[in-house]
This record gives sequence, structure tokens and C-alpha cells, in this order.
Amino acid sequence: MKSITIQQPGNLVIEERVIPQPLAGEVRIRVTNAGICGSDVHIYRGHNPFVKYPRVIGHEFFGHIDAVGEGVESSRLGERVVGDPVVSCGHCYPCAVGRPNVCAELQVIGVHRDGGFSEYITLPAKNAHVVPDAIPDNEATMVEPFTIAANICSQMNPGPLDTVLLYGAGPMGLTSIQALRGVYGVKEIIVADRIDERLAMAKANGADRVINNASIDLKTELEALGIRPTLIIDAACHPSILPEAISLASPAARIGIMGFSSDPCVLSQQAITSKELTIYSSRLNSNRFPLVISWMSERKIQPEKLITHQFPYLQVLEAMELFEKDQKQCCKVLLKF
Amino acid sequence: MKSITIQQPGNLVIEERVIPQPLAGEVRIRVTNAGICGSDVHIYRGHNPFVKYPRVIGHEFFGHIDAVGEGVESSRLGERVVGDPVVSCGHCYPCAVGRPNVCAELQVIGVHRDGGFSEYITLPAKNAHVVPDAIPDNEATMVEPFTIAANICSQMNPGPLDTVLLYGAGPMGLTSIQALRGVYGVKEIIVADRIDERLAMAKANGADRVINNASIDLKTELEALGIRPTLIIDAACHPSILPEAISLASPAARIGIMGFSSDPCVLSQQAITSKELTIYSSRLNSNRFPLVISWMSERKIQPEKLITHQFPYLQVLEAMELFEKDQKQCCKVLLKF
Repeated sequence: MKSITIQQPGNLVIEERVIPQPLAGEVRIRVTNAGICGSDVHIYRGHNPFVKYPRVIGHEFFGHIDAVGEGVESSRLGERVVGDPVVSCGHCYPCAVGRPNVCAELQVIGVHRDGGFSEYITLPAKNAHVVPDAIPDNEATMVEPFTIAANICSQMNPGPLDTVLLYGAGPMGLTSIQALRGVYGVKEIIVADRIDERLAMAKANGADRVINNASIDLKTELEALGIRPTLIIDAACHPSILPEAISLASPAARIGIMGFSSDPCVLSQQAITSKELTIYSSRLNSNRFPLVISWMSERKIQPEKLITHQFPYLQVLEAMELFEKDQKQCCKVLLKF
Repeated sequence: MKSITIQQPGNLVIEERVIPQPLAGEVRIRVTNAGICGSDVHIYRGHNPFVKYPRVIGHEFFGHIDAVGEGVESSRLGERVVGDPVVSCGHCYPCAVGRPNVCAELQVIGVHRDGGFSEYITLPAKNAHVVPDAIPDNEATMVEPFTIAANICSQMNPGPLDTVLLYGAGPMGLTSIQALRGVYGVKEIIVADRIDERLAMAKANGADRVINNASIDLKTELEALGIRPTLIIDAACHPSILPEAISLASPAARIGIMGFSSDPCVLSQQAITSKELTIYSSRLNSNRFPLVISWMSERKIQPEKLITHQFPYLQVLEAMELFEKDQKQCCKVLLKF
């Protein structure tokens, strides 16, 4: 089979590998669609702190089960499935409280173990989630990106009283906007980004108001508008955003971060406690695949809106460079196997 | 009537004032017992950022209703009550989501308006909570301090799977220990403080293990013990604690802060997000009086254990100096009116 492997940072190879056999409790997926995420590019560029090389990348993938390991019902053969990249031990404290995404022995597909940019992949049977026939292949490939939004939103519990400020109109931001609008029915969504074309996508995906914070001071603008956000999500992931978010937040607001920067982030506890803010963080997803599949089945979200490009997998380098460089036009790029 | 007034920082006067008449919707309490809190001392010393002088201090008080304003049932006369110091508008966003403690027009009794170190006090009728006869006067005076613990615990939702690390064995820490042990039934409580006598009180109030972090490095000690706390409460309120708590926390842990320091607190977002931590903050209490009164009625907590000293109100200066200086022996000091 062909697999897209990062041998070392900056060195991507499409290599021939032996088709893997599913172990006990596993299934094998014949992958037909996969999506490129920022973290795939980070691994390619050598900016992911967790990865070991060489590594087959890819953690957004869709296909059909074509083999099952010992202990897995053969009735699963042929199922259309998406793969949850979170492989967990099932018995540590985080697993016991429903947080396998931060399992003590966490193995992320495409990071700690080989991923889905490959013609075949094996993974635990419970990680392969059936997709109803009504959901087309391309949309099914978008389940994983929406689980990122589902994970942070599920923690923060948005609702009709919420005025949301969302930083960053990239894929994580746009999936969050769709969920906040279509699933949670928040009162208002304000989106800040530094690229006008992304802000236009934010509007097309459900934002009520957009602000280019490269040219406009966000604090001044929100004060002029009389807006105090009650729920703030940092989907831009710059360490300077959290202190700003704390200063902009309404009393009793919730702030959610997803960034992994190790740069120092300087806060004032008085600013947090005087407003009794809560700060959530979100990594990957904790068992959110069934939830997102139900959102798609019920047409609460429109994943097709986010797919801007598709490439045969042999053009993966071209696809990844486009994703990396064309932030104005590019949202989700799919690979076809 | 006599009222204990801070005229200016450092200038405490027991002055004669006119007995106030309850306004519409208010009751008047004939105060018989009151408790001294660290924040009373902060106002006396000029270290509270919210207060305006002159101010009658005191926000932990118990007494009997002896007059009612227009619109309040006369059947309330004679009720044994404790006063919730949080006076809120009832219609802003925080009030609408059950967080009157960070109301947009927040008035805290004893801070923004005159307090309970006085023979009489008027306050909104809904702020005067009836105390069942089975709860003695002194214990009733302890309801407010326990609402501080109730407020942070209610947000953090402790449970039998939790290993708790609690910083600070002063009144906020000890009330939290009692609640974590008697109400929430957590698995284990480890308490860190720099004073051995306080750690002894922590043990007497339900801590399983105590560590003097003036002499022992907490990180080294917890690692040697194989302990990764799943719930951390900073009741010592020093800005250096949050970064340490983040490094000590188990994945999926919750951290709660109550400090008001404006000193810079330097964090790494990677340290937060990689473990998917949640950081709660807690200020005063949001409608927690009925909850704490039920805890006392059901004998889930032992407020009497925390009362170390009692003084006639005329000795308030002596009482406050004792509270301030004798951290080894002193927990809760009551004044008798």
C-alpha cells in the first residue's frame, strides 16, 4: 500500500508499505478520503512537540472496514466509518472520568502512531464510528474537525443568553461558528481575525459581526458597540489572546483556549477572580464522534461549506503547501485515496 | 446604636449612629453575633480595592429580624437569620445566569455598603436567610464563611474519584476541607501550608495528609508519593501558586483560585491545554446560603470546630489584631453584640 510518511522534519515521502493486519480488537479501514489539518503541517515542519519520526500523518480519515481482528464481529465488514484518532488505555483517571483525550497513555493516530494518510490503517474497533448513508463521503471526512469544536463547546455549554467572541476564522474557528449557530443557538457571534477573506468565510458560516483586529483595536470597538462577551473561544491560539480575552469578558463569562504555545502568558488573577471567570482548555476530543455524526444527520451543521479544495493523494505536497500558504482562500483540503 | 466603622485605613471607631429604618423590601436585623474575616482586616489596613470610607465593616452576621419594610410580611418579625452580603440588581447577565456575586451593580455588605459589625443592619429581605432552631447562634454565624467553600466546590463538582490538593489551612481552607470531606466525599485530601499549627488544624478538620511547603518541596514530595491531584484549590491566594498547581495537576484536573492579587502570574498555555485543565475562579457566593444551612442541618459539617475565639464587640481592635497576628492558634474569631 501507499503511505504518506514524514521521515524527518521537511522530508515527506510517499512510500510503499506492507498492508497491516488488524490485531485483536482492531479493524482495518480501506481509506478513501482524508483531510489536512494544521497539525499535519506542524509535524511536516518539525513543530509538533509530541511526534516521533518517521510517522505516517493524518488523523481525519474516512473509508470502509475491510478486515477485522480477533474478537470483532465480522458484521462490521463493509461499514462506512470515520476514525477517532484518540487511542486510550481505558483505566487511568482521565479515562475513568470520560476524558480519554488526555489519557495517561494517550496514543494519537497520526502523531504517536501511524495515521490515516495511507491506503489502509488499523485501529481499535471502538474508534471506527459508523456513518449513516445519508452523510456523503466528503462530509463524513469532516467529522473529526467538528469534534474539535464539539469538545470545547460541550465543556463550555453555550446557550441562548451567550454573546460569543471567537478569535480566528480558520478551520477550528469556522467549525465552532457552525456549531454555536446551528447546535447551541447562541444570541450573537462576533469573530475577530486578521484576514478579511477569512472574516468573509466567518460571515458565510454564521457569524453576526466580524472585526479585522489587524486594523481595529478590539477592546475599543467592542466598548463602542456596548458588547461584553459572555463566552470567548480562542481558535487563533496565540498566547497574547488569553490576557486580552480576560479583559474583554463579561463578569461570569467562560473562556476557552486550544493553543499549545509554550511562550509565557502573563495574567492577573484579580482580573479573573473579580469577574469570576472560568477558563476551559480543549485538546482533541473526548468521545465526541457520535455527537457530531448526529449533528450531521440532523443537518444542524453544513460541513460541505468548509471544503475548499480536493487533491489526489499523490499531490499531497502541493495540497499541504496550498493549505499552509493560502490562508485567504483555503479552509479544508481533502486528499483522495 | 453602636457601629464599628473604619473612618480611613488604620482608623477604627466604635461610633454612635441612628438606628436605620428598613426601606421597602428590606428587613432590619438586631445583630447578636458576627465573625471577623480577612477582608475586614484588609479594609481596616487599606488593602481592599473596592471599598469607600468611612465604612461599617462586617459581612458575617447573625441576629433576629426586629423590623420589616413596606411589602415584607410581618410574619418575618422575630426570625433567626443570617445575612447574605451579596446585594445584586437581579436583571443583568450575571444575575440572569445565577451569578449575583458578580452582578454588574454588585453591592457587598460591609464593603460597598455598611456592614454587620453594628447593633442593627438593614438589608433586602431575600438576603436574610432563616436558620433552623437546631443550629446554635455561633454556628449560624459561620454560614457565610462556609458559602465561600460551597461556592468554589459547587463550581468544581468534587467527587469520590478526586484526589484534592488544597493550598492554605486558614478559614477558607478549613471550611473547604470540611465540605470536601463531609459533603462531597472525595477520595483523599492533601493540604499544603507553611505553618505547622495550621496543618494540625487541617488534619483535625478532615485532611488525610499535610505537607509543610515552607520546608518541603511540594512537587518532589508528591512525585515521591505518586500523587497527581485531580482537583486543586488555592485557598492561600498567592499568585505563585497557580503556575505550580498547573504543573502538579493530573490530566483532566480542575483548579480553583480565589485570590485577588494584581501581581503578574506567568503561565504556559501548553501546560494547561496538553492536560486539558479547567481553571475556575470564585468570589463571594452565588445563592449558596440555603445549601450551607442544609449542610449544617444534616450535620455534614462541623462549624463549631473552627471557632477559636470570642470577644465582646467593644474589644474589636483586640480581636482583629489577634486574628491578624496569631495565625498559629487563631481560625475564626466571633464578636458578640
